[in-house]
Amino acid sequence: MKRAPRYDVAVLGCGLMGSALARRFASSGLAVTAWNRTPRGAEALAADGVRPSATVGEAVGEAGLVVVCMSDVEAARHALASVPSLVGVTVVNLSDGTRDDAEELARRLGEQGALCLDGATFCYPEQIGEQSALLVFSGSSRAWTEHESTLMLLGGRARHVSEDITGAKALYLGSGAFFLTALTGFVESTACLLRRGHTLEEIRETTLYGLELLGHATQAVASSIASGRHETDQATVHVFADGARKVLAELESAGIDSSVMAAVTGKLDATESAGMGHLGYSAQSLL
Amino acid sequence: MKRAPRYDVAVLGCGLMGSALARRFASSGLAVTAWNRTPRGAEALAADGVRPSATVGEAVGEAGLVVVCMSDVEAARHALASVPSLVGVTVVNLSDGTRDDAEELARRLGEQGALCLDGATFCYPEQIGEQSALLVFSGSSRAWTEHESTLMLLGGRARHVSEDITGAKALYLGSGAFFLTALTGFVESTACLLRRGHTLEEIRETTLYGLELLGHATQAVASSIASGRHETDQATVHVFADGARKVLAELESAGIDSSVMAAVTGKLDATESAGMGHLGYSAQSLL
Repeated sequence: MKRAPRYDVAVLGCGLMGSALARRFASSGLAVTAWNRTPRGAEALAADGVRPSATVGEAVGEAGLVVVCMSDVEAARHALASVPSLVGVTVVNLSDGTRDDAEELARRLGEQGALCLDGATFCYPEQIGEQSALLVFSGSSRAWTEHESTLMLLGGRARHVSEDITGAKALYLGSGAFFLTALTGFVESTACLLRRGHTLEEIRETTLYGLELLGHATQAVASSIASGRHETDQATVHVFADGARKVLAELESAGIDSSVMAAVTGKLDATESAGMGHLGYSAQSLL
Repeated sequence: MKRAPRYDVAVLGCGLMGSALARRFASSGLAVTAWNRTPRGAEALAADGVRPSATVGEAVGEAGLVVVCMSDVEAARHALASVPSLVGVTVVNLSDGTRDDAEELARRLGEQGALCLDGATFCYPEQIGEQSALLVFSGSSRAWTEHESTLMLLGGRARHVSEDITGAKALYLGSGAFFLTALTGFVESTACLLRRGHTLEEIRETTLYGLELLGHATQAVASSIASGRHETDQATVHVFADGARKVLAELESAGIDSSVMAAVTGKLDATESAGMGHLGYSAQSLL
């Protein structure tokens, strides 16, 4: 039996991102309800045309599409467990978690009758609805086809990346290694520069240069890893390893905890030891 | 006795960067000579109005300002050791090296009578002469004052950062930790994503997002380290550590060498263990 939903979309979880999603749906003319663990989060959205629901059951029971944006997959699973049936509902999970979490949640929701998509946001809440915003979804193609026009409201670069429910989490977690590693490297770098008496303005300038270099270097490195061709007419692993040893010595002599830069240097050393010092930076991926 | 130099500037070392420097000086109307270990490098610049010198002595002997851009400081020291006197000459060393290398070179050149500056380039060779190009110089203020207008031709953001000869190398090496760490993190990230079947286009998109996030996060982190205030109303070390453990598990389950991501996770763990899990990302600098 197909239900006749009173709301087009229910949003569960009204943190910064959940609230941005609910507001965007509402400003696009959809009938939107929102639920939050502490009611104030949902009530704050009333001024933007989002109707607060007092319970998960009330929110879900009256919507055809449920977008879940909670702190983690466990919280999402717990919230939805209280709803007796999800037949006729598509649940889109945007809560953080592992690939296993995404798979387990989809299995449970499937048992309750829902079609499932899992997703990840590669944008700030303030970017939601903009052309530049990238959101990725994975899982049921049928659910994607049915709700694509609604989910595309969230960002111009929203897309379905895989029928495999774990695809979105895999992209989010895999790419997270770049961000977290870079930011910890920045902490070591900056602690050293400040101890040497350099100014925030100097650090800002060299950081902008580093980010610009990374914009170019990452594309070249990704292409090399994808093609398996690691030859280079630019700087080799030997050159980078020599530079890395100097950088590490500088951090150590400034008395900085440099465990991550030490790991980077160790990896370049290992690449040299494996006979790949004449190749490009990407050859580290062959270790 | 003050010499009357026949050339305004001599450039020693005609790699990509040295050649760009020589060309820029010449196109600005200066009389420029260039020397390279293998003569072809200098001869290639003749079409751009740079006069090749056959020996270091010939180049240096007829210039008031000598800019050295060789593979490393040892090569620079060796090249200049053959010149009997550097009285009346300012030598600007842009060759790679450590702080000790910069200090030792300046000491030796000082004994030969030269005034010394050491420098580092935070730009591509193609950017030399542009407003955006950042070059930093350290050492003798007298030499900087005398040659500032010439050296400012190289980039709109060229500047003297310290009377201490090691200042430029310290900035270059310290900031290098960010670039090298980020790029190795990218190798681990990308190897994982490709193994999971993600496309280069997906990787390009998430990388652009990561770089944009880094543009914001690095400024906040630098300010926190400089001020010593690590409280946050955004994500805490606990949140990032939890994320990092998921990211590391994802790399490991994909069979990727993840030694650098493991070091990042270990550092976040250590920050939590030290009782700083409620603080912001910058608290890692207190380890």
